[in-house]
Amino acid sequence: MTTVNLDLDTLVRNMALQARAASLLLANAPTEQKNKAILCLAELIEANVESLRAENAKDLAAGEIDGLAPAMLNRLELNDKRIAGMVEGARQVAALPDPVGESLDTYKHPQGFTIEKVRVPIGVIGIIYESRPNVTVDCAILCLKSGNASILRGGKEAFHTNTALAALVGKSLEEAGLPEKAAQFIPTTDRAALNTLLTLDEQIQCIIPRGGESLIRFVSKNSTIPVIKHYDGICSLFVDRAADAEMAKSIVVNAKTQYPSVCNAAENLLIHRDVSSAQLPDIATALAAKGVELRADSEAKAILDAANIPCQQATPEDWATEYLDLVISIKTVGGIEEAMSFINEYGSAHSDAIITEDQATAQDFLNGVDSATVYWNASTRFTDGFEFGLGAEIGISTDRLHARGPMGLRELCSYKYKIVGAGQIKE
Amino acid sequence: MTTVNLDLDTLVRNMALQARAASLLLANAPTEQKNKAILCLAELIEANVESLRAENAKDLAAGEIDGLAPAMLNRLELNDKRIAGMVEGARQVAALPDPVGESLDTYKHPQGFTIEKVRVPIGVIGIIYESRPNVTVDCAILCLKSGNASILRGGKEAFHTNTALAALVGKSLEEAGLPEKAAQFIPTTDRAALNTLLTLDEQIQCIIPRGGESLIRFVSKNSTIPVIKHYDGICSLFVDRAADAEMAKSIVVNAKTQYPSVCNAAENLLIHRDVSSAQLPDIATALAAKGVELRADSEAKAILDAANIPCQQATPEDWATEYLDLVISIKTVGGIEEAMSFINEYGSAHSDAIITEDQATAQDFLNGVDSATVYWNASTRFTDGFEFGLGAEIGISTDRLHARGPMGLRELCSYKYKIVGAGQIKE
Repeated sequence: MTTVNLDLDTLVRNMALQARAASLLLANAPTEQKNKAILCLAELIEANVESLRAENAKDLAAGEIDGLAPAMLNRLELNDKRIAGMVEGARQVAALPDPVGESLDTYKHPQGFTIEKVRVPIGVIGIIYESRPNVTVDCAILCLKSGNASILRGGKEAFHTNTALAALVGKSLEEAGLPEKAAQFIPTTDRAALNTLLTLDEQIQCIIPRGGESLIRFVSKNSTIPVIKHYDGICSLFVDRAADAEMAKSIVVNAKTQYPSVCNAAENLLIHRDVSSAQLPDIATALAAKGVELRADSEAKAILDAANIPCQQATPEDWATEYLDLVISIKTVGGIEEAMSFINEYGSAHSDAIITEDQATAQDFLNGVDSATVYWNASTRFTDGFEFGLGAEIGISTDRLHARGPMGLRELCSYKYKIVGAGQIKE
Repeated sequence: MTTVNLDLDTLVRNMALQARAASLLLANAPTEQKNKAILCLAELIEANVESLRAENAKDLAAGEIDGLAPAMLNRLELNDKRIAGMVEGARQVAALPDPVGESLDTYKHPQGFTIEKVRVPIGVIGIIYESRPNVTVDCAILCLKSGNASILRGGKEAFHTNTALAALVGKSLEEAGLPEKAAQFIPTTDRAALNTLLTLDEQIQCIIPRGGESLIRFVSKNSTIPVIKHYDGICSLFVDRAADAEMAKSIVVNAKTQYPSVCNAAENLLIHRDVSSAQLPDIATALAAKGVELRADSEAKAILDAANIPCQQATPEDWATEYLDLVISIKTVGGIEEAMSFINEYGSAHSDAIITEDQATAQDFLNGVDSATVYWNASTRFTDGFEFGLGAEIGISTDRLHARGPMGLRELCSYKYKIVGAGQIKE
């Protein structure tokens, strides 16, 4: 056992050293060369669909034997649509502008030299993920385009599929003449390897965990490397007393039902006491028609009961629950202050919306709700890198440092200062 | 013992909850109100010089009994010059533009609504520092101006002085009508309180440790809150074969001797083999005249020995040592590639310079050296928030995420997305 762990330790340390060396080359690689590798990968995936599906079938069979839940098996599956999605995603990323080298700012020092702030890659990024094998390709490509070396550590359920995909990533780097170690896949899911990885802060500059909250908490607790987290979202909608009733209904139904299992779907509906009798029955009927289960506080429940709309009594746990399903909690509030306090207390600071025609109230909401994205009269479902014009997305950060909200290629970069003088010294 | 720790735990948790509540108010406080508190603090410090010095005398007396090193006692001392520095610093920060609320970007969504990226405070920032009591005031002011609530945890050596300064901070907040809990000082140096603080990631969004490497490593290892670190610097100078000899000498002497105990002072001198015989004796003589001890590799030592310039044989440890003193290591290299490999391996990615008249070599250096600030023909001593036009500095980050290099008020901010629609829903 000790021997195995020592071997794993050495394995991961060597990977990190090789990634660091590769990252220094990749940081200055021409855009065309990076794009060549990405487009080559797209072709390799298309040319190897059968063998990829065969490897995926092994993972699916093992998952069934292990009794994985249907939702888990679904995430694990690499079907034709997902393969086409990876290929299309790769071609889109190749077409995006290169974020590296962009001049962000310049400052002319009184002593006559210039300080230029230039966008550069972060360096080596570790991606820790769970069952979805397409993350292997998506993340390797986003890191590559942004000039970062990556070390990928997938979940054990997808091990065969990930290994096959990682081999294609390696081949595409080689064909483009880029260092093969610029994207590496850890060939074991032993937790000891992950534990070592999270401490290699001399070589690895950033860790991005993707998956459930327990994985993210584990990584965050055990990493000495800075972590960018993207937790899931507890998003709220506030129907103000000055809301347009039709707009409110449309936004609530969209934010809750258009795609309920994603992080920017709404979980809590707050309604102003002054309009709850008038508007809630109509909104609730529309939600119920889409199959949404309603969980209401006593005040809202009385209104729904009177209108013969089935609903349950909400409990305090409901306010802080991410259902990711056709369930919504309904809370009556006395005004904007109570709505903001509720959201800042129970929400996950991801995406929250107010529906109102009152500009002053809307501004209070946009300023006072402490979330990454705040909406006035629009659905929270728009929180997404593509919708925000970023072109690609590696995730949505609920952290405050580095990147907040949707993260694209620019958010995978750092910067450096270049100073060009003529012999200036400090006086 | 258990009772004491439980009390500390509760104390720190309550402070964090109060800081979080205060931060939500402070985030939208008008610039004038924040400036009023800062200017009031400057006045309070001036009005209380005697009592501050009396509290500081207690710390100094205790430090002498405890046998603190002279350098440590020096850092601990709140003399007239340092008090004047705090007051002047406060007035300068009050005069700086408010970073909060600045529009950073806008994107027009195809469905007709606008997404605006706006600078906002990070939230609650924990500052963990050691013996210098002026950090209490400097950091409280920078956090306040950038709209962040702060929790300050100073070292035990400066406890009386810090407590007195923190009381003035609290009074200035009160006088400006800002929440008194917007800047709080932890009234104990018990390690248990720090351990609790570092896990309160629901309330605290950022930890900035200031001090020696062991403190920073401790914080980094034990914090579940994102940390921005500013380690000290191992900075290198590379005298290329195409260097102007006079400029090289001037920059080397300045970077090493102008203020040797700071992080942007040079520790390693790399010299191109083609010019070492011609230029090294002159540079070494100038360094020796300033009292610098020379530690050279065999090749450089042979040249210096032949010129009768005293020097020691450098050991491999020298390349990675931050002397913070009048000592320099000298290494002979065969060219730009060897120089860059050396710096990327042994340096701390802080500030490094090349001296050359060859533009292509200089560009290779600026691109290939993986440091926060890279210089061509200028002294590394310029790496500083004031010199970079930031107006103020909370430290220099050697991390890659969030902020890199000198950190001012903007680097103490995050951003949020404000979306203003007209009822748009996701299709």
